[in-house]
Amino acid sequence: MKKLINDPQNVVRESLAGLALAHADILKVRFDPTYVIRADAPVAGKVAIVSGGGSGHEPMHVGFVGKGMLDAACPGQVFTSPTPDQIEAATRAVDSGVGVLHIVKNYTGDVMNFEMAAELCQGNGVNVQAVIINDDVAVENSLFTAGRRGVGTTVLAEKICGAAAERGYDLARLAALCRRVNENGRSMGMALTSCTVPAVGKPTFELGENEIEMGIGIHGEPGRERMAVAQAREITARLAGAVVADLPFRSNHQVIAMLNGMGGTPLMELYLVYQELEKILRGHGIVIARRLVGNYITSLEMAGCSITLLKADDELLSLWDDPVLTPALRWRI
Amino acid sequence: MKKLINDPQNVVRESLAGLALAHADILKVRFDPTYVIRADAPVAGKVAIVSGGGSGHEPMHVGFVGKGMLDAACPGQVFTSPTPDQIEAATRAVDSGVGVLHIVKNYTGDVMNFEMAAELCQGNGVNVQAVIINDDVAVENSLFTAGRRGVGTTVLAEKICGAAAERGYDLARLAALCRRVNENGRSMGMALTSCTVPAVGKPTFELGENEIEMGIGIHGEPGRERMAVAQAREITARLAGAVVADLPFRSNHQVIAMLNGMGGTPLMELYLVYQELEKILRGHGIVIARRLVGNYITSLEMAGCSITLLKADDELLSLWDDPVLTPALRWRI
Repeated sequence: MKKLINDPQNVVRESLAGLALAHADILKVRFDPTYVIRADAPVAGKVAIVSGGGSGHEPMHVGFVGKGMLDAACPGQVFTSPTPDQIEAATRAVDSGVGVLHIVKNYTGDVMNFEMAAELCQGNGVNVQAVIINDDVAVENSLFTAGRRGVGTTVLAEKICGAAAERGYDLARLAALCRRVNENGRSMGMALTSCTVPAVGKPTFELGENEIEMGIGIHGEPGRERMAVAQAREITARLAGAVVADLPFRSNHQVIAMLNGMGGTPLMELYLVYQELEKILRGHGIVIARRLVGNYITSLEMAGCSITLLKADDELLSLWDDPVLTPALRWRI
Repeated sequence: MKKLINDPQNVVRESLAGLALAHADILKVRFDPTYVIRADAPVAGKVAIVSGGGSGHEPMHVGFVGKGMLDAACPGQVFTSPTPDQIEAATRAVDSGVGVLHIVKNYTGDVMNFEMAAELCQGNGVNVQAVIINDDVAVENSLFTAGRRGVGTTVLAEKICGAAAERGYDLARLAALCRRVNENGRSMGMALTSCTVPAVGKPTFELGENEIEMGIGIHGEPGRERMAVAQAREITARLAGAVVADLPFRSNHQVIAMLNGMGGTPLMELYLVYQELEKILRGHGIVIARRLVGNYITSLEMAGCSITLLKADDELLSLWDDPVLTPALRWRI
């Protein structure tokens, strides 16, 4: 295993220390229990948003903490759910008295630990609602998951709900909005290579020299099929085809499209795939109203990409356009 | 070779098409001759800035086109200099009559082709000055280079000179500023893995399972030494030590620090290395006044990182803080 790390057991802690040093104007990191929090939290009168999950998917979630997005993120160990005490501490730290939304990706450990934390918070007078994101069309049930896995739509939900919270949506309205984003978002990913969890020291799965995996999970969970290396055109058509067919997305639908890199894929290739995606969606008459191309929800150094489409009405587009200032997403600052 | 591409010969063209679709609000792409240009170019009364070089280092340079940074970028084939006709066409397209600055990394082909283009432009009444960036402390002379290679300081020079051009610096003053950035900037990089040029189809160089290369060039040119895998702490100390000793940077110097990923390294590891860098510089009494952590000058999917330090006075820091809106860098929008 070749990685830029010290002790494999300290990777998350040392990385968070660097995040805090690099972005002291935006966020703070607290340890034991460990969470990342907006520098100006709690924001008076605003419903707070907390997310979290295993580390190794950066910038998600810790890179999305800041004005217009998350109030706090709870990073677990690599590919491991955060603990209830982390989530409880973060939730209590950001609550200004008007409640907290938990955005939870659908993995068994995450769902269970966020539930336990929510109960602990509610016992202490903090009003919490949770929304589960389960947008991955690749498979029903998976390693670590009952039902569909939560992937790229999480990024879009955090941006859109973050904007709505800044605008003053109350907790019930914010949770309803988040559920609506989840219901209208679909994703699928693929891998050219595996990745290696530092504390494990060997690749999570094996892929042959000329093999790729379609429908991969963000922890390397099995997808729909293994196939021989194909051109970007064909890979994009298969991913987009599965995503479009599932909602289904139809002609004249407006979408927010995310072409996401898995961590080890050069930006050059992501733009190339994005161009294929635009061609395919145009062929369906689907209108890309907004787009995001880059590494947003990753799997360590895995090479590959995922496509997320969110059917968006004027409210969602307007919230998408609102200002955001986080380490990883920033516009209209 | 597993890559998200179609025909290896069309990678640059198809990727640029995607860049144009994704960022139509910021830039346009013109083909044959091929260059990327600010959507609002030429900007009346402003000295324009053109850079370029081989593709495969994205976001540099095409991702730095936009307000507050480059007016145009000329992408060559992967790891191949752009041609004089590309550079000439871009230069003429952005000139508003008050001259154009060429920022050129010190590689023999780049320097020669930018010189030829400048002569062609001057024959057509466009005033051009060129500044060569040669900040890599790893080696004197290299494959493709007489003298030192140009690397990370290029990113900082493009940001700072871009701001100065927006403020109205004339060509002579802008070129002097760019030379000053180059004189005060130093870099060194390292690789955990090689990378594969699409049209070649096999890794540029071989590194053993437990080997890393210190002082690597951004095209995989040999560095100072191969050594066994080491902890991030030691790798950072060696890179930072070489960079600090070269200028030299001294106690109480203010710096802009860039911790750059080579393309295939997870953000988690980059933040971890950044934390080591801050500790080391603090030990020297060097003050990190501004910082940038992420993938800015890459080598396709190479895993590794580089460190750039720029000794910065108040003028450079103020220009650094000015607004910038490009695909890859954006603040105070």
